[in-house]
Amino acid sequence: MNISANANYGNIKESYLFSEIAKRVRSYSAAHPDVRLIRMGIGDVTLPIPPVVVEAMSAAVAEMGVKETFRGYPPESGYEFLKQAIARYYTSLGVDMPLGSIFVSDGAKSDIGNLVDILGDNEILIPDPVYPVYVDSNLMSGRHIHYLEGNQDNGFLPMPDLSDASPYVIYLCSPNNPTGAVYDRTQLQIWVDHALKTGSLIIFDAAYGAFIEDDLPRSIYEIPGARDCAIEVCSFSKFAGFTGLRCGWTIVPEGLSASGSDLNKMWNRRQSTKFNGVSYPVQRAAEAALSDEGLKQCARNIACYKSNAAILADVLRRKGVFFTGGTNSPYIWFRCPDSMGSWELFDKLLEEVQIVGTPGEGFGSSGEGYMRLTAFGSPEDTAEAAKRLEQLL
Amino acid sequence: MNISANANYGNIKESYLFSEIAKRVRSYSAAHPDVRLIRMGIGDVTLPIPPVVVEAMSAAVAEMGVKETFRGYPPESGYEFLKQAIARYYTSLGVDMPLGSIFVSDGAKSDIGNLVDILGDNEILIPDPVYPVYVDSNLMSGRHIHYLEGNQDNGFLPMPDLSDASPYVIYLCSPNNPTGAVYDRTQLQIWVDHALKTGSLIIFDAAYGAFIEDDLPRSIYEIPGARDCAIEVCSFSKFAGFTGLRCGWTIVPEGLSASGSDLNKMWNRRQSTKFNGVSYPVQRAAEAALSDEGLKQCARNIACYKSNAAILADVLRRKGVFFTGGTNSPYIWFRCPDSMGSWELFDKLLEEVQIVGTPGEGFGSSGEGYMRLTAFGSPEDTAEAAKRLEQLL
Repeated sequence: MNISANANYGNIKESYLFSEIAKRVRSYSAAHPDVRLIRMGIGDVTLPIPPVVVEAMSAAVAEMGVKETFRGYPPESGYEFLKQAIARYYTSLGVDMPLGSIFVSDGAKSDIGNLVDILGDNEILIPDPVYPVYVDSNLMSGRHIHYLEGNQDNGFLPMPDLSDASPYVIYLCSPNNPTGAVYDRTQLQIWVDHALKTGSLIIFDAAYGAFIEDDLPRSIYEIPGARDCAIEVCSFSKFAGFTGLRCGWTIVPEGLSASGSDLNKMWNRRQSTKFNGVSYPVQRAAEAALSDEGLKQCARNIACYKSNAAILADVLRRKGVFFTGGTNSPYIWFRCPDSMGSWELFDKLLEEVQIVGTPGEGFGSSGEGYMRLTAFGSPEDTAEAAKRLEQLL
Repeated sequence: MNISANANYGNIKESYLFSEIAKRVRSYSAAHPDVRLIRMGIGDVTLPIPPVVVEAMSAAVAEMGVKETFRGYPPESGYEFLKQAIARYYTSLGVDMPLGSIFVSDGAKSDIGNLVDILGDNEILIPDPVYPVYVDSNLMSGRHIHYLEGNQDNGFLPMPDLSDASPYVIYLCSPNNPTGAVYDRTQLQIWVDHALKTGSLIIFDAAYGAFIEDDLPRSIYEIPGARDCAIEVCSFSKFAGFTGLRCGWTIVPEGLSASGSDLNKMWNRRQSTKFNGVSYPVQRAAEAALSDEGLKQCARNIACYKSNAAILADVLRRKGVFFTGGTNSPYIWFRCPDSMGSWELFDKLLEEVQIVGTPGEGFGSSGEGYMRLTAFGSPEDTAEAAKRLEQLL
């Protein structure tokens, strides 16, 4: 064909991190068919959907089979019943959230990728290591990315360069994927103040907010000033086990303006044009997850994952290995021993103790020499993995 | 903020067609609270999901509540069980469709909007009148659009200008939304041959294929040569009543290449990066809709809508009003009487016979002077609407 393709796709790496992991795991499993692997690679939940959520979703499916209760096209930005449940969640954080600022979607990944659509050709600021979608979706649109180095000195919580007055689109993720590190209020206030001063936009990924138990901010809007400089992306995936059901939400505050353009109206237009809303039964399921009983049941699952994380963190602490995460997060991010590279340790973990981790290098060059483990496995597997890890380290 | 927004959003019209309709309807209803309107505006189904689909979806929801059968992240391009069901559908059309060409999504609207992502800054060719998403999603990306006039002479089935050798991205929709007109094999072959000759790409919207009963092509791939020049977007919405469940699929043939770039790989990368797959229970529901029993049950619903369409077409035929659609389509597209404008007739229908239509002008300037009615109402409402329409015309 003579028509052209988007040439920017040539700037993204051919293979996605998790495909490469899957390839190496397949190859190892083929050679060792009897060995059972402990998978602590992909950040996917393993506990089933809580009963109250299953009930709500089943009831909604039944409604769709009856003429009187059948529902067609959902509102593109979400049913009001779900927006109200989300607003109540913000109320519980002390944040007032008008329904017009809430956009329900099929997941945080979609929203993070699609937000680039409404923005111009800005300079992008992304901490490294980082969730690859921030990088790839910006490269696909030909954006120029500046990286902010995470390292042992800053505890993988890089702060802004206060001497740089340029405006950026800044991606922050807290609790962080992959490092599990969490910004405190003071740190986020510095980010917000700097964004306001430089006219920057913060895209705040709060997908792991439900893992916070200490007095740390779960939403960027807990920070004064954030409403004038930040978009927040949230997810039911890790909070309520929705990785297979697909639901999330994004906050674009009403009145948020970029060089005179109303970003709330633009996102509404983007979603109304290129999206048709979330499946009705899934929205009922999400509403149930945010009910009092739903929050209780979801908290039980999260407690299980956090107990796993604590077990892994304990091993690393006793072995004197530098790590972040392990509390307020399902991730543990640790330095590879003996100056090993990430993929080198990946292969060693796979071959010697049959644990599948995620090589830190897959999250950016500052991740080289680190490894991510997830706490989403079963308590039994995690205990076994902790034992094997202790022997190896 | 000093960061910039996507300036192309300034080129799209502020208000979306259906918002304006909703506004006028709200205003009329507020003034006449006791009047019951017959809604034949938005193309949304009204019959409930067929029983076999509800059963499959309920079973899948139950699976998600049990540890042993719980499923997390789905494959971004869809579960193999659903891709196989889609491949069997193509087999029934005499088309061999490898699973690697099939991408399951949350709906045709999302795919149509997002396909622009993988394409370069091409000239766009769009028949007018047209489903607004083709236009808006291209304007949002700053593309230049050429329109191809649909009119009474070509039966709203515009054909290519064979003297124009330029390559375009061409949007075709058959059965057409809004006109209900359907290209026959000879016509589509001319389009495919012209696309191959000029190096153009056809994006074929087959969302209404299930309404075809005559020997007309349901898929562009029934036409020799299409695999080398066409992407096809399909939907469960109208075929199985999934407007509220959200599922569709897109075919990007393996090996389809635009100026040396592999569009199949690019779409896979786009979807893997900015999308996380369709809800597992929805995919099971879609699989059930394509089962033998599902096809039978869905066909019953479609037959009901088609009988509605026939009743409306009959009135127009007897009144000597020019129209397209009414067979092989849930839409009837007719010329406004007495040289009325589209919105003028819209108001007249609303105020005098309490019927909500869709003004043809909302689908493009060639739609001015036309009105779209949908056959998705109940048989009772449709019969009543036909009676009122007969009196009015």
